[in-house]
Amino acid sequence: MPKINILKEAEKIKKPYIPYHLVNVDNFHVFLGLFEGDYKKHKHPYDEFFYVVLGEIQIEMDKETVSLKEGEGVLVKKNTWHKSKAKNKAVVMLFEKIGMQSDFA
Amino acid sequence: MPKINILKEAEKIKKPYIPYHLVNVDNFHVFLGLFEGDYKKHKHPYDEFFYVVLGEIQIEMDKETVSLKEGEGVLVKKNTWHKSKAKNKAVVMLFEKIGMQSDFA
Repeated sequence: MPKINILKEAEKIKKPYIPYHLVNVDNFHVFLGLFEGDYKKHKHPYDEFFYVVLGEIQIEMDKETVSLKEGEGVLVKKNTWHKSKAKNKAVVMLFEKIGMQSDFA
Repeated sequence: MPKINILKEAEKIKKPYIPYHLVNVDNFHVFLGLFEGDYKKHKHPYDEFFYVVLGEIQIEMDKETVSLKEGEGVLVKKNTWHKSKAKNKAVVMLFEKIGMQSDFA
């Protein structure tokens, strides 16, 4: 398998909040997201792990808002409403089950 | 869920090549490894994704050796013999199925 340079891959992403696939890990996958501005509030039927590679993001959930900087991660548990935001461009690596659907608020 | 600062967590790891659990993502988990020196050649029945947070590592496989620096990742496919090495301390974030057994050479 070829190695993946995360920031080099991220440079190819032009639009925010569109999953950019990196690799499948069995029935899960690793993908990147360019976060910029507000995304729509949504939830999923499975867990989702966020890890910030570059920049800073916020994830608003019903009971808390988590601010994440480079090198920080958080799990958003299944069925948790969440809304991502970033003032400036940020690069996020995500791990989740393949084919996960979003339910928008 | 509390956020996780990867490098702060890594400071708690004292011994190389012992999985340090961070979080479950459904039936997968994210964990850290301190890589230093040579690990034993082994394989698993499922895929394993490696992402280097700090330092530099090598993963020797039958047909290739992959060198990874900070910000680089690679997938080791299921049933692939692999042996990890690091000249100096490195911190690696790993993503794999929970409860995965290793088969040593």
